[in-house]
Amino acid sequence: MNIKKTIGISNDFWNVTAASGMAGIVAGNLGAGRYTTRADGHEFLNMSSYSYLGLDSHPALIRAAADAVTENASLNTSVSRMRVHFGILRDAEDALSDLFRVEAVTLASCAAAAWSALPLVASGAFTGDVPPLMVFDKHAHFCLNAMKPSVADEAEVRTIAHNDLDALEELCRTHPNVAYVADGVYSTGGRAPVRELLRLQEKYGLFLFFDEAHGVSTCGDQGRGLVLDTMGEINDRTLIITSLNKGFGASGGAIFLGPRGSRHRRDLALRYGGPLTWSQRINTAGLGAITASAELHRSPELKELQLRLQQNIDRFDALVPTAQSGDGLPIRFIDIGSEEKTVRIGRALLSEGYYTSALFFPVIARGKAGLRIMLRADMTRTDIEHFGRLVNELRSRND
Amino acid sequence: MNIKKTIGISNDFWNVTAASGMAGIVAGNLGAGRYTTRADGHEFLNMSSYSYLGLDSHPALIRAAADAVTENASLNTSVSRMRVHFGILRDAEDALSDLFRVEAVTLASCAAAAWSALPLVASGAFTGDVPPLMVFDKHAHFCLNAMKPSVADEAEVRTIAHNDLDALEELCRTHPNVAYVADGVYSTGGRAPVRELLRLQEKYGLFLFFDEAHGVSTCGDQGRGLVLDTMGEINDRTLIITSLNKGFGASGGAIFLGPRGSRHRRDLALRYGGPLTWSQRINTAGLGAITASAELHRSPELKELQLRLQQNIDRFDALVPTAQSGDGLPIRFIDIGSEEKTVRIGRALLSEGYYTSALFFPVIARGKAGLRIMLRADMTRTDIEHFGRLVNELRSRND
Repeated sequence: MNIKKTIGISNDFWNVTAASGMAGIVAGNLGAGRYTTRADGHEFLNMSSYSYLGLDSHPALIRAAADAVTENASLNTSVSRMRVHFGILRDAEDALSDLFRVEAVTLASCAAAAWSALPLVASGAFTGDVPPLMVFDKHAHFCLNAMKPSVADEAEVRTIAHNDLDALEELCRTHPNVAYVADGVYSTGGRAPVRELLRLQEKYGLFLFFDEAHGVSTCGDQGRGLVLDTMGEINDRTLIITSLNKGFGASGGAIFLGPRGSRHRRDLALRYGGPLTWSQRINTAGLGAITASAELHRSPELKELQLRLQQNIDRFDALVPTAQSGDGLPIRFIDIGSEEKTVRIGRALLSEGYYTSALFFPVIARGKAGLRIMLRADMTRTDIEHFGRLVNELRSRND
Repeated sequence: MNIKKTIGISNDFWNVTAASGMAGIVAGNLGAGRYTTRADGHEFLNMSSYSYLGLDSHPALIRAAADAVTENASLNTSVSRMRVHFGILRDAEDALSDLFRVEAVTLASCAAAAWSALPLVASGAFTGDVPPLMVFDKHAHFCLNAMKPSVADEAEVRTIAHNDLDALEELCRTHPNVAYVADGVYSTGGRAPVRELLRLQEKYGLFLFFDEAHGVSTCGDQGRGLVLDTMGEINDRTLIITSLNKGFGASGGAIFLGPRGSRHRRDLALRYGGPLTWSQRINTAGLGAITASAELHRSPELKELQLRLQQNIDRFDALVPTAQSGDGLPIRFIDIGSEEKTVRIGRALLSEGYYTSALFFPVIARGKAGLRIMLRADMTRTDIEHFGRLVNELRSRND
């Protein structure tokens, strides 16, 4: 990690971002990704929202969240969930397990899911008690990378270039037991080559560990995500962690441990899964929203929202070409280069009513800064077209 | 860690615990620590609840949680809190900062607070850019111990015996920059020698890192916890993490970064604080409950609840002597020895309507199993006396 060095390189960019009013914005919710600043009532649309289907504003989920708090008359059971938990926790995990056709457990966040599941996989608990060689994709999310020191306590760790199938196959050829750790959909754009990875799994028995925080809800039939939609059914050489807060519109995260009914894995995860064992579960509000969201994922509304999202992606791609154009995913990176210019353009967009995320080191390499765009199903055609034209104008004007 | 070895030693005990109905209980809430099982409607009082003041059932907190969801019409802002967050998040952190007279930031759990703060302290960010020697108390909570590999990436790590002031002072004498990592109140009973640690801080400039998950609300004026109550005011050589879910009765966790107005520390934590930077914040339900709980902590009701808790602790101590008797804290460990006998007694207590937590390896050493009792302010005298007599009877009968 070397936090000290990271601070030295990027803290000034953050100071510039904050000084320009692009960080730490305190706002009230207007719905559908729109906010109004507390300081001066400036209204803006968040063009970098990970609620891809707009479920963070869905009335049925909000109502279910509030009702769950009132009905349970508590936020949790004040004892480890391993010991005593509310029926609503069981119901939410059953709803997830049924929807995704997996054995699902829930945690306070997707990062907690990584903390829980990665050392357990590294210990060999899911691969016949033999610790696998743990191979990380270089672009795997921070919450996965941050676990490398703990993973290295249990198994050997390697890092390979992004989506480098040749390097991975070479390791599979030379090691009897390999686990690959990657995102399904990458938070800075792009995806894992899931079909090719499944071929390596079939050929070598490769264990696959995916973070599907940006894939679930967004992709696949009933929002099952990129990985499960490609696989059809999960197998016992695959583990998926995900957020239930992003596309899914609720709170917390989950681990899909394997096929529905993987009792032994479930026991091991609950007993030896770090934060799953001794840390907080999702509160009743989040659990209520999960159950409501699972129901919505089974309804025709889900498909409709996914279609609207696709239309918005196409509209954006038609106006603003990016390296990700045409990949069908809602994440776009507008590369600008200099950190200063990135903040300047972001600031100008915000004045016009559009918030974008300025990304720079350590999220991406130095001198390769830009704006991350994340599209939502509930953005209007007018907004996307206006925003796209503004981006193009500002980019050329500042060249 | 060696998860594989841990599983080999303790998984059978968990199987016995589960088979006896002491794990994975699905229950509905009856309030004041009472539950009814979904399976057969058996009613029981949780004698091992970390809601020491009974705030998990407080109507004002529950109402505030539900109202916050409805009023914000969302569970969160679907973008990093560093970028855009609701006014209610700012309000909750202001309320905490004012109540504890610290600079507070909130996260999804106390474990997330450890993940966020420990590597940052190890990097030297809070000690003049010089990484300190990181000294862990052997009994520091799992969430602290689990971070050792990541901490070791930034600084040298040592582990010393529990509350070993001599060993700590020796390290202070021989190293210019030392940080000590410990619990304020230990989850298995006992406390840190805070006064003595403050003397070492004064003498050597020792940096102190406390987990106050079990101290906050329970101890001190306005529930400021064991550490802050002893210190008076926090100083810039002390950092505290805590849960807002246990005694505090809400959701999530917090980092007390230093004195109120520590702007530079706050910026560093938000920008380089791992899950604080890129993971989930507390949802609006939890934030509503935090604000309501902070208000309650400032009211006379808090003192009253603390007094009732103390009465219950005294009642229990008078009936069931333990190694912790008379320490004024609500955590008691009834040592039994054999794992089997522990589960047998726990099972018998549950039939009589009292749930206790059976503790064994890896939480405590092998062959030193027992039942953890955690007292609440809202337990009745009748229940405590009945329970105490039952425990004494069962222990002698099974000897």
